[in-house]
Amino acid sequence: MALKGNLLIAQGGGPTPVINCSLAGVISESEKNDEICGIYGARFGVEGLLCEDFIDLAKEDPRTIAALENTPAAALGSCRRKLTDEDYPKILKIFKKYDIRYFLYNGGNDSMDTCKRIFDIAGDYDIKVIGIPKTIDNDLECTDHSPGFGSAARYAAISAMELARDVESLPIHVCVMEIMGRNAGWLTAATSLARRSNSEGPQLLYLPEIVFDEDKFLNDIQKCQERTKGVLVAVSEGLKDKYGKPVSESGITDGFGHKVPGGVAQYLSDRIIKRLGLKSRSEKPGLLGRCSVAHQSKIDKEEAFRVGGYAVSSALRGESGYMVSIKRISNEPYSSSLELVLLDKVANKERKLPKEFINKEGNGVSEEYANYALPLIGGALPEHAVLKKIKV
Amino acid sequence: MALKGNLLIAQGGGPTPVINCSLAGVISESEKNDEICGIYGARFGVEGLLCEDFIDLAKEDPRTIAALENTPAAALGSCRRKLTDEDYPKILKIFKKYDIRYFLYNGGNDSMDTCKRIFDIAGDYDIKVIGIPKTIDNDLECTDHSPGFGSAARYAAISAMELARDVESLPIHVCVMEIMGRNAGWLTAATSLARRSNSEGPQLLYLPEIVFDEDKFLNDIQKCQERTKGVLVAVSEGLKDKYGKPVSESGITDGFGHKVPGGVAQYLSDRIIKRLGLKSRSEKPGLLGRCSVAHQSKIDKEEAFRVGGYAVSSALRGESGYMVSIKRISNEPYSSSLELVLLDKVANKERKLPKEFINKEGNGVSEEYANYALPLIGGALPEHAVLKKIKV
Repeated sequence: MALKGNLLIAQGGGPTPVINCSLAGVISESEKNDEICGIYGARFGVEGLLCEDFIDLAKEDPRTIAALENTPAAALGSCRRKLTDEDYPKILKIFKKYDIRYFLYNGGNDSMDTCKRIFDIAGDYDIKVIGIPKTIDNDLECTDHSPGFGSAARYAAISAMELARDVESLPIHVCVMEIMGRNAGWLTAATSLARRSNSEGPQLLYLPEIVFDEDKFLNDIQKCQERTKGVLVAVSEGLKDKYGKPVSESGITDGFGHKVPGGVAQYLSDRIIKRLGLKSRSEKPGLLGRCSVAHQSKIDKEEAFRVGGYAVSSALRGESGYMVSIKRISNEPYSSSLELVLLDKVANKERKLPKEFINKEGNGVSEEYANYALPLIGGALPEHAVLKKIKV
Repeated sequence: MALKGNLLIAQGGGPTPVINCSLAGVISESEKNDEICGIYGARFGVEGLLCEDFIDLAKEDPRTIAALENTPAAALGSCRRKLTDEDYPKILKIFKKYDIRYFLYNGGNDSMDTCKRIFDIAGDYDIKVIGIPKTIDNDLECTDHSPGFGSAARYAAISAMELARDVESLPIHVCVMEIMGRNAGWLTAATSLARRSNSEGPQLLYLPEIVFDEDKFLNDIQKCQERTKGVLVAVSEGLKDKYGKPVSESGITDGFGHKVPGGVAQYLSDRIIKRLGLKSRSEKPGLLGRCSVAHQSKIDKEEAFRVGGYAVSSALRGESGYMVSIKRISNEPYSSSLELVLLDKVANKERKLPKEFINKEGNGVSEEYANYALPLIGGALPEHAVLKKIKV
């Protein structure tokens, strides 16, 4: 028989377009089980955990819970606080005080490390700790993909499609679009899904996995510009040169000590103007790429919900110290199953785009990437009219 | 009886999310009338006009024409070329060569100037010239609003809503979002429609109609940050200081000699970091704000289509030298009618946000603005779940 007690869920790190679907999945599954007495949410992640800022999710209106799936950002609030060694014993005390027997942490690789440490500190206190994956960057290890990626990839693909139409219809400049993903190029790669043919934009992609060489970049653009009117280039925010130095930095360091990149598209656009003498401009949807409800992927929403429920049912089965992982079963039709992986194996690790997903020239992706990513963006991309253009 | 001959339509300037709806409206109305023999489209605006690059729109598949309403950018292609005095007689020759008796130009204030000059040059040659309004900036004179504005305003409002959710859920930085509109703040103002209450983001708006004062801007942000965790600020790309100097420039000049602004959000975000010591970041959806199909306004689509059709029927009635204008009849329910205004009255003019639409402090808008803009964005904004957050 499962432990009787309260469940606490927290959201950590950057939001995704479907992080609240996982929250809804957790609440839905928890409500079905009598062992779970209270369903509590920590506000602003581990910040709320440390200051006992808990809300009672069972008291929310069912319509509000249903609306979570179309609500961007982290409905409970999130944070980027790295816990210190002194924080963990405090957390254990708080768990005991509130009779928390189930702790679920919905986050990325930094959050999975926090989750693992919370699991480690429990000692004799019987608590089940499960991590729920979430990241638009898709850089979590030991899972085919992470909830959030499919929707952010759909946003990147549709945005690139729309920009490509704009740039080819008024071909007066090179357009550089910046895509999130500090160290992993999964999302930047998703802009390639916008192409209906090789000549269409984005014609060039620059991924953080490939050392950035400004001369080669400018040469690529010059060549492309000679072939095509209206060049669209997608660049990862995290491009680094051969010394590992970011091409452009925001000047900010986050709570985990990571330098926050920023402004690479504008920087590179300026270089195109100055060094090639071409007109150029940049777009940086930035956070908009992780909070678009209109571009949520249907599959991503469903999986995010299921992953939340599975975390609860796993904890009720007595599992602890794991993260829920998605296993792809088939591509056509797409189907997946869920399983558990040790938190140890995912905490603080970063999964980058594998070499076979990148093209030989290092400025685009391979067909293998499209096979991997297309099912996840959840259905066909919009169709744009293509005029036959029969000359008078 | 109306003139028998061919119709030529061209698209000019920056695309809007609904410019192709007007094209569909033109084609649909032209097909109904036997006086119009050929329905031709000039590729890339007046560029195609000068080099006789015309396509036969009657030969397009009806499904393609139907798909135009969901196709971003300018389906015929557009340009920013300013015609010279030598170009106009050439154009008249080309009109005669192709027996063009109806010329429709779908564009903004620069294009209306071109349209007017084409009308002026016709002399004895019997041709009906009508301008079809289009601009996301909403800066065309003599019309309640321009097709394209409603959709771009919807995009700005929904993007601001989603960013506000993101920033309030992970309140680690000030977020500065940049909105298009070189000299007119209509679109930047639309971000205010995102607010469900005064405390919600975007808390501050900076419009190009108000002289930008960096000290006041930073002071506003500091005060807002003390009150609210997670500040969202919307800034127009075209902010200028008291000397009329753009706060940030892209270094590009367009075909009409206008300096293209760019990068103001990133510049101001850097100033917030440096001068206030706050974390800050910037988002610049840029061109994405004028090509989003997901955020098209239903009313805007319908009006854009009607405006195209009205241009054709007006020309067939023998009218020439006019632009189609939208007259608002009522707000609840919203309804509008179409009429004609002299091209003279709109060419090269720029309508800015009137004073009564701007708040006293010059960092936001008034209720009058919301009354004006809300009907145009076409239906309710999405609803986001708001948790009651009952403490445990």
